[in-house]
Amino acid sequence: MASPKQFEPASGTRDFLAAEFERREHAFSTIRTVFSRYGFQPLQTPAFERLDVLTGKYGDEGDKLVFKILRRGEHEATGEADLALRYDLTVPLARAAAAYGSQLPSPYKRYAIAPVWRADRPGKGRFREFVQCDLDIVGSSSPLSDAEVVLALHDALEALGVPEFRFLVNSRHVLFGLLEAYEVPDELGPGALITLDKLDKLSPEAVVTELVTGRGLSPEMARGLVDDLTAADSVARIRGRLKASEGGQAGLDEVDRLLELTEGAIPAERIGFAPNLVRGLDYYTGIIFEVVAPGTPGSIASGGRYDGLIGRLGGKDSPACGGSLGIERILPLIAQADEAAYSQIDVAVTIMGEEQAADSFRLAAEIRRTGVRTGVYLGSSGKFAKQMKWAGEQGARFCVIYGAAEREAGTVTLRDMESGEQVQVPFDQSAAELSRRCTPSS
Amino acid sequence: MASPKQFEPASGTRDFLAAEFERREHAFSTIRTVFSRYGFQPLQTPAFERLDVLTGKYGDEGDKLVFKILRRGEHEATGEADLALRYDLTVPLARAAAAYGSQLPSPYKRYAIAPVWRADRPGKGRFREFVQCDLDIVGSSSPLSDAEVVLALHDALEALGVPEFRFLVNSRHVLFGLLEAYEVPDELGPGALITLDKLDKLSPEAVVTELVTGRGLSPEMARGLVDDLTAADSVARIRGRLKASEGGQAGLDEVDRLLELTEGAIPAERIGFAPNLVRGLDYYTGIIFEVVAPGTPGSIASGGRYDGLIGRLGGKDSPACGGSLGIERILPLIAQADEAAYSQIDVAVTIMGEEQAADSFRLAAEIRRTGVRTGVYLGSSGKFAKQMKWAGEQGARFCVIYGAAEREAGTVTLRDMESGEQVQVPFDQSAAELSRRCTPSS
Repeated sequence: MASPKQFEPASGTRDFLAAEFERREHAFSTIRTVFSRYGFQPLQTPAFERLDVLTGKYGDEGDKLVFKILRRGEHEATGEADLALRYDLTVPLARAAAAYGSQLPSPYKRYAIAPVWRADRPGKGRFREFVQCDLDIVGSSSPLSDAEVVLALHDALEALGVPEFRFLVNSRHVLFGLLEAYEVPDELGPGALITLDKLDKLSPEAVVTELVTGRGLSPEMARGLVDDLTAADSVARIRGRLKASEGGQAGLDEVDRLLELTEGAIPAERIGFAPNLVRGLDYYTGIIFEVVAPGTPGSIASGGRYDGLIGRLGGKDSPACGGSLGIERILPLIAQADEAAYSQIDVAVTIMGEEQAADSFRLAAEIRRTGVRTGVYLGSSGKFAKQMKWAGEQGARFCVIYGAAEREAGTVTLRDMESGEQVQVPFDQSAAELSRRCTPSS
Repeated sequence: MASPKQFEPASGTRDFLAAEFERREHAFSTIRTVFSRYGFQPLQTPAFERLDVLTGKYGDEGDKLVFKILRRGEHEATGEADLALRYDLTVPLARAAAAYGSQLPSPYKRYAIAPVWRADRPGKGRFREFVQCDLDIVGSSSPLSDAEVVLALHDALEALGVPEFRFLVNSRHVLFGLLEAYEVPDELGPGALITLDKLDKLSPEAVVTELVTGRGLSPEMARGLVDDLTAADSVARIRGRLKASEGGQAGLDEVDRLLELTEGAIPAERIGFAPNLVRGLDYYTGIIFEVVAPGTPGSIASGGRYDGLIGRLGGKDSPACGGSLGIERILPLIAQADEAAYSQIDVAVTIMGEEQAADSFRLAAEIRRTGVRTGVYLGSSGKFAKQMKWAGEQGARFCVIYGAAEREAGTVTLRDMESGEQVQVPFDQSAAELSRRCTPSS
C-alpha cells in the first residue's frame, strides 16, 4: 500500500489545484496588462541553459544552489552535468540580448513572469520552484528609464490590490559619496556597505562594532556613518554631509529627478528618499529601490540601475535598469480578496436514463456554444439525489433535468440551485434561456 | 570575442520573442476557454518530480529520454540523480490524483497546458522542451466521457482556427475482435497490433511479411487482416467479420455510441470510424482516436480510454479517458492567420528637450491610465528624425510631440503615424483624445 508521502510533490515544490492556479494566473495576467501598457514586451527562455551559461554568475553561494542536469545516454555514467535549470531571469535576458540584439528594439524593454529553480533549504514561504516577475530596460541610460521601471511596478502593485506599500529610493552614488565624506578608503567601501545593509536587522551599536572590527573602519568613521543613517533627521543630515562630495551630490540629483518624474503618478506617501537603503548586491551602479509593505518582512519588490551587468553576464556591454516583483510574497497579501469559492461550472446537466442521454448530451453542447460553462453528469449512478449532490459540489447555478416526462412534453426543467425554484422551458429554447440567466464565462 | 553559438539556447530548446510568445499564449488561452466551458479544471504540477515517480513508467526507450537532475551539495560528487524533469503530464496527473483524491471532484476532469522535457535528438519540429496540452477524465467509465473528450478537442481545434481536420475513431475491442475472428493466438495479439499500426507507413505486402516472419502469424491470418483493413469497403467488411466476435461487436457499439453522441456537434465529414487505426501505445482499453490534418504527417491530436493506467502509474485504480492536442504541430497550421506585424505600443511619446521631459513623461502616465499602451522615448539622442524612426519601429499609431512651441501654447501635437497628419490638442485633453482614437489594449 502506498504511503501518502510518495504522492507529494518533490520537496520545496507545489502542486496548484484549480482555485489556487486561477488565483495565480489572474495575478500574472494583471501584471502582464500593466507591463504591456508601458510597452514592455515578453521574453520566454527555456527552463534550462547550458551549464557554462550559468556557472560563475551567482557567486559561490549561488552556484551551489543551481540544479544541474546529468548528461544522458552513454555519458550518464560520468556523473557530469551539461545543463542546468535557470536560477533567475537576468542571466537568460543577458544571453538573449546578446543573441538577438539586432532584432530587438533599442532600448529593449522586456518582462518575464516565469518559474526559476534554486536548491535552497525549503522552509515556510521558501520554495525550490518559484515564480519570478522581472522587468528590465536594456540600452538606455536615461533617468526616464529608472522612473518608468518604478512606475510600472507601482501600477502593478496597485492593480494587484496590494493594500499598503511604500517605495524606498536611494542611489549607490549617495552611499559612495557618504563614504567619501567620511574619508573611508576606497578598498574598504564595498565591505562597509555590506555591513551598513544590516541596519534594518542589527542594532546601531552592533553595526558600528562590525564596521570597526570586521571591516577595518576607524571608530569615528563607523560612528559617523551609523549616526547619519539612523538619525531622525537622516535625510537632511545626509544632504548636508554630501555638499562635500561631487559624486554624492550627483546621487542626490538622481534621487530627486526620480521623485520629480514620478510625482503625481505615485502619491507622495508611497515613495521617499531612504538614504539607509543599501541593497546587498554589488552590481547596482545608480538608482536603487525597494518596496516594503506592513507585516511583510524584507521587501515585496526591488530593483535599480545596473550598468555593466549585462556585459559581465556575457551580453554586449549596455546601460540597464530593472526591477522585480516578489510575487510569491505578494500573493498572500492579496489572497483575501479572492477567497470566493471556486466554481467549476455554471450549468449542470443531469442524465435521467439511457433514452434521454444523447439528447441531454447534445443540449449541453448547445449551452456551451453560448459561452456558458456546462458540465454533464458522468457518474454511473442514475440516482437523482446523487446527481443533485454532484451539481451542488460543482458550484452550478442551474441544473437541467430532462426525464421521461419532460421528453414527452418537449420541455426541460431548469432548477435554480440557490432558491430551489424550478421552471419548465421548451427544449429548443432552453440553451438560450440559460445563456440569458448566466453571465458568459469568457 | 564571443561566438554567436554561445548565445543560442541549449540544443533542442527555443527562446520566444514577443510576437511568437503572444501568438502561443493566445492559442493557449483559446484552448483554456474551451476546456473551462466543459468544466475541466486546471492542474499545475512542478517541473520536476522525484526520480522514483518517473522511473519505469515510460518503457526502456522512454526512460533513456528523461532529463535527470544531479544531487546537490556533498552528494553532487556521487554523480547520482534524485529528481527528474517531467516527461509528460500523465504521470504527474496520476500522482496528484492519488495525493488529493478526496479534495477533487469525482469524476476529476482536469486539463494541463505545460512544457515537458525529453532528451530526444533535436530535429525539424522536434524539440527537447515542448508544450503538451492534455485533458483527462479520471473516475468515469461512461461513454459520455469519451464523447466529451472528443467534443472538447473538436471545439478547441475549431476555436484555434485549424482549417481542416478529421477525427478517426476506433476501439481496441474492434481490433481484439478482429484478431479473434482470424483466430490469432492471444499471445501473438499485441505484437500483431504493433505491426498493423504501420499500415499508414509501409505497403500492405510489407506488413503481411512482417506479420508472418516477425510476429509468427500464419500467412492466411496475415493476408486476411491486412486485406480487411486496407479494402475500399473496409468498414462494411469489418462489421461483417465481427458478427463472429462478441468483444468485437461491443467495440463496434462503443464506436457507434461515440458517433451518435457527437452527431450534430461535429459535422459528419469531420469524424468517422477508422478500423485501421491502432495507436501504438498498449495502455488503451476502449475507444481510441486520432485527428489528422491535410499536409501534416501523423496526427495533430489523439487519445482514448485507458482504464487501469492511473493505477499502474501509482494512483488509485480508476477508469479514465483523455486526449492531447499536438499543439506544437498545430501552431504552424494556424500561424498565417496571425501574421499581422506585432505592435508594441499604440502611442509613442517623444522627448523634445530637458525642460519638457518631466511633463511628457507625466502625460505618458496619464495616457496609460486610459488603458492605451504608451511608450516614452528613452534613447539619448534628442534628434527628431531618430525619435520618429523609433516610434515607427514600435508600431505606434500615434506620436505625441511636445516641444518648446507646444509648451508655450499649452498644447501637444498628435501625429497620425500612418497618414502623417498632425493636429494640435490642448495639453490637458490630449490623453482623453488619444484614448478615443485608440482601441484600448486590454
